[in-house]
Amino acid sequence: MSTLFYEPSTRTRLSFESAMARLGGTILTTESAAEFSSAAKGETLQDTIRTVEAYADVVVLRHFQAGSAEKAAAAASIPIINAGDGPGQHPTQALLDVYTIQREIGRLENFHIGLIGDLANGRTVRSLAYVLSMYSNVKMYFVAPDVCRMKDDIKGYLTSVGVDWEEVDDLAMVAADVNVLYQTRIQKERFQDRPDDYDKAKGKYIINGETLKRMKQDAIVMHPLPRVDEIHPEVDSDPRAAYFRQARNGLYVRMALLKLCLEGRQHGH
Amino acid sequence: MSTLFYEPSTRTRLSFESAMARLGGTILTTESAAEFSSAAKGETLQDTIRTVEAYADVVVLRHFQAGSAEKAAAAASIPIINAGDGPGQHPTQALLDVYTIQREIGRLENFHIGLIGDLANGRTVRSLAYVLSMYSNVKMYFVAPDVCRMKDDIKGYLTSVGVDWEEVDDLAMVAADVNVLYQTRIQKERFQDRPDDYDKAKGKYIINGETLKRMKQDAIVMHPLPRVDEIHPEVDSDPRAAYFRQARNGLYVRMALLKLCLEGRQHGH
Amino acid sequence: MSTLFYEPSTRTRLSFESAMARLGGTILTTESAAEFSSAAKGETLQDTIRTVEAYADVVVLRHFQAGSAEKAAAAASIPIINAGDGPGQHPTQALLDVYTIQREIGRLENFHIGLIGDLANGRTVRSLAYVLSMYSNVKMYFVAPDVCRMKDDIKGYLTSVGVDWEEVDDLAMVAADVNVLYQTRIQKERFQDRPDDYDKAKGKYIINGETLKRMKQDAIVMHPLPRVDEIHPEVDSDPRAAYFRQARNGLYVRMALLKLCLEGRQHGH
Repeated sequence: MSTLFYEPSTRTRLSFESAMARLGGTILTTESAAEFSSAAKGETLQDTIRTVEAYADVVVLRHFQAGSAEKAAAAASIPIINAGDGPGQHPTQALLDVYTIQREIGRLENFHIGLIGDLANGRTVRSLAYVLSMYSNVKMYFVAPDVCRMKDDIKGYLTSVGVDWEEVDDLAMVAADVNVLYQTRIQKERFQDRPDDYDKAKGKYIINGETLKRMKQDAIVMHPLPRVDEIHPEVDSDPRAAYFRQARNGLYVRMALLKLCLEGRQHGH
Repeated sequence: MSTLFYEPSTRTRLSFESAMARLGGTILTTESAAEFSSAAKGETLQDTIRTVEAYADVVVLRHFQAGSAEKAAAAASIPIINAGDGPGQHPTQALLDVYTIQREIGRLENFHIGLIGDLANGRTVRSLAYVLSMYSNVKMYFVAPDVCRMKDDIKGYLTSVGVDWEEVDDLAMVAADVNVLYQTRIQKERFQDRPDDYDKAKGKYIINGETLKRMKQDAIVMHPLPRVDEIHPEVDSDPRAAYFRQARNGLYVRMALLKLCLEGRQHGH
Repeated sequence: MSTLFYEPSTRTRLSFESAMARLGGTILTTESAAEFSSAAKGETLQDTIRTVEAYADVVVLRHFQAGSAEKAAAAASIPIINAGDGPGQHPTQALLDVYTIQREIGRLENFHIGLIGDLANGRTVRSLAYVLSMYSNVKMYFVAPDVCRMKDDIKGYLTSVGVDWEEVDDLAMVAADVNVLYQTRIQKERFQDRPDDYDKAKGKYIINGETLKRMKQDAIVMHPLPRVDEIHPEVDSDPRAAYFRQARNGLYVRMALLKLCLEGRQHGH
């Protein structure tokens, strides 16, 4: 397995590398693949992939450009796993989120979820809302500061497929109602030209001990990590804090995915 | 195997690491060995090698200074493989080029080759011209923009050992005559102070569908990669496009080289 | 094993990775973990550790902040090995130094040692002085330029536990008396605002052929490496030059340490 990372994401890279190591495979690691596309030596992503596929049986690609994983897969004769392509998709995150919900609350249908935080810029929540729309009877609450509300494309799509969603301001009410509270970080890096907006958004919806008191006993708190201060550390020791288990689930989901990819490849021969 | 890279070359590094992984060995990887020679902690290359040889059985060294591989090898008690030392040599590239010609056209003697592009700055073509001079009856054409013609040292050497070489401007003629068309990238990074020269040189000799029509049916197109646009993508699907097979051959040549190095070492004990 | 390096130290990283490879384990490597704590994505070290412990069975942590290893260990459910925490500790270096003395001169008691060079800023010599104070009858000489003398905290501590220490200026006298001459590099990076002091300190105490002539036949020269020019290369070929053996001992000590950590963990289940 070659991990080809055009932008750094140590968390995701280590998760994939640990998954492959546990399956008994070997890892060729690249923390700074951007050199491939540097100005001086600039080659197309397709050429890079055609070169790297001589060295590896599967490539894990992280790229800064939306659509790059698809472009790479079209050029490749080996499986390409998308580990995030800029503002595009991060499908293994969505898979591990869904797996975590199934594992924690025992079902993917008939439940209520609150998506909190930076719903405009968070790739994770956008993908998750989309994936959950495929399951029956999932009620979604969107709780976001004004400057980072869920965008119309997702809301329109959810409406078109009959998903019951609602935008609300009252985190306490949502906490009391849902089975899953999915918190996200306000993406500071998207607010570089408007620090005031960031400061306003950042402190608005915090999950803390008070929130826990309102939540059901079998509900869970999820977060794609890293967190800054949108979940208070006092929450960590509560059994309903599922976010570190969620990170660990990433390992299992990626092991399964790699196994599927490589088995498929072997049968194809 | 420790890959000690003082300048980044992900392509070469991954090729060596994949080779070692396929031989069943373990890899200690270093994308940024330059820290060893940083101003504050500056130690000599010899000291670094004497330290690293405690950790590895073979070192693959990429350095920005010509002669550094030789210097390292003199200090070391384990094999040092030169993976490029600045403007110096890149011997495993020359080996894989020669292996590719042998494998693709079935011989290393009695053939015609056209070396195209940046013949002044391309380490690859300079090494290849030198290596091919050891085989009988290899006719070489040099096809280069004015600003990057093959330098006199190589031309003088080739003449002195009786190699038949010729500088020509007409790529179409050369394409029709040769068994191997070896294209190279104009090295933009060497033209930083004269961008006009770069622009002039860049578009001059492009290999495309028209070139293919003129070529023999059993001739091949080679390129050390990365390419920018000196080979049109329409060439890629032609069976005579050998450059991605050439990259893969790098893996085999490096596996063979590592095996030789380590076997030699074992017998020496 | 995951090597989590928030500041680069290729030497220490490769030593640990080689140790784990020789024990048959797998390595997840990170040359630039600082991304974890970047401004935009800033998460606490504790959160990072809780994530990484899902991927690895042991973490080797190098951090720029004193106390960070302790903080990480408190948050972790797996062993954390401190591979240097800024101006804090570098305990595996102290272990390999002690192991080297035992192995080279056959004992850790009843010997004389001279600590030379940058005694103010060198983490290594400070740790070593502390560790050696636990053994009986170790006489210590401190030989340092005025601007980087051993600090009062260590001197006070040594006096309080009854260690016999002495500050001297005469390297030649010390060389003739000791069993171990432990040379260190003047840490240029600590003198950025006073280059004159650096230049004065740098050349003051050099170990060279003359020094060797004064030394006992069974004494040794140690150095934590990297060296700049405080040991002349003519010393390298003398059998008493123990510094490259010392570096190799780092490998053995780290193998032992990893084995202990992981065995303990297994028994704990």
